[in-house]
Amino acid sequence: MLVLIYYLSYNKYNTINKEVDLMKSLREYLWFNTNKRVELINITDDVRQVVKKSGIKEGLCLVNAMHITASVFINDDEPGLHNDYKKWLEELAPHEPISQYDHNGFEENADAHLKRQIMGREVVVAITDGKLDFGPWEQIFYGEFDGKRKKRVLVKVIGE
Amino acid sequence: MLVLIYYLSYNKYNTINKEVDLMKSLREYLWFNTNKRVELINITDDVRQVVKKSGIKEGLCLVNAMHITASVFINDDEPGLHNDYKKWLEELAPHEPISQYDHNGFEENADAHLKRQIMGREVVVAITDGKLDFGPWEQIFYGEFDGKRKKRVLVKVIGE
Amino acid sequence: MLVLIYYLSYNKYNTINKEVDLMKSLREYLWFNTNKRVELINITDDVRQVVKKSGIKEGLCLVNAMHITASVFINDDEPGLHNDYKKWLEELAPHEPISQYDHNGFEENADAHLKRQIMGREVVVAITDGKLDFGPWEQIFYGEFDGKRKKRVLVKVIGE
Repeated sequence: MLVLIYYLSYNKYNTINKEVDLMKSLREYLWFNTNKRVELINITDDVRQVVKKSGIKEGLCLVNAMHITASVFINDDEPGLHNDYKKWLEELAPHEPISQYDHNGFEENADAHLKRQIMGREVVVAITDGKLDFGPWEQIFYGEFDGKRKKRVLVKVIGE
Repeated sequence: MLVLIYYLSYNKYNTINKEVDLMKSLREYLWFNTNKRVELINITDDVRQVVKKSGIKEGLCLVNAMHITASVFINDDEPGLHNDYKKWLEELAPHEPISQYDHNGFEENADAHLKRQIMGREVVVAITDGKLDFGPWEQIFYGEFDGKRKKRVLVKVIGE
Repeated sequence: MLVLIYYLSYNKYNTINKEVDLMKSLREYLWFNTNKRVELINITDDVRQVVKKSGIKEGLCLVNAMHITASVFINDDEPGLHNDYKKWLEELAPHEPISQYDHNGFEENADAHLKRQIMGREVVVAITDGKLDFGPWEQIFYGEFDGKRKKRVLVKVIGE
């Protein structure tokens, strides 16, 4: 950078701002419509595509469910573990009986609103050198707890 | 600033700064003092005001409880669901008996520290085109689990 | 700023970009290798050092576990409370019997994957005036739920 500026000081028509790292951002949606009420879907590659498209080298990537009966979380892509999650969430916040929840006068998905709080709405991932800065087993999942309808996940990348 | 840039444009040595998007930031506090020990309060409009005030068009908005027996979370503004949350959290982390928690030698709020972990400390929301980039039902709540005292929520907006 | 630019308009060798606030970023790892399977470790000072090193005055600091059986969370540095967390997590997601989890055909740490979802993967902290913008009792902890092996926490600071 210093070398560059020195060079420009010899150039009276200076165009220095091509060298300035501006903040960039990109927002994309991912769409889902699951076959089952509860599904866990690996979206790591979709997020990676958005980061690549953004051209951002250093920054942060927010990935969040846009619906309040769904989650975005980071964990292991291992089917046994996913079964464990589904069973465990069903014990902590059972779907039935429907009548046990006040919310279910409107809908039948109160349990999904509770499950989503355990698993979380969002993840924020560091972008370093143009890539998701991940540990060895980190994978991003969409957690659907009230599926069979169209829903979105938001990906927002900011940085430079 | 625009006038200044116009002036510079008469100057053959550069018009650079109209091209530079600087990063902006704003930090604001929201204050609470609830009447009940447990309350869930919709703070979406307060956060929206901070984003508007920041003038930031593209970026991220962090909203977090500054106290460790309170939460900030995103879910539905539906009173039945809020009752369900309160009952459910009381089952997962009961307030009484006070003596069941080691922490309560100091205070009587150990349950509030546990409840806050379920509901979360913070949310990060994308800002796109100057607005909170929300799904159809997303609303931001302050979750108080040990109220009747002054507490704060931090809102930090960064972007450009 | 205005004075400076005016001055530069007389100076054909302009060095304007030293005045432009560029976005900065820094990524650092913190390493852990705990003696016990479950430990909660205060990492606030380590994170503070990274923020200081970054030179960033206004921005965001992401701190996340890079392993999927560990957490980063913010709460109180009080040993009684930490006992309460350990007991409570053991009730919500017991380590034994090992055979109760499908995941444990591979390993014996399914409970750690569940515990980490309760406590969370990451925190995002505002940086204001060069410092972690914290409430009076906020402290950052590494939560290890499957220890006795080398693991990392990522700290990413972005801002200006």
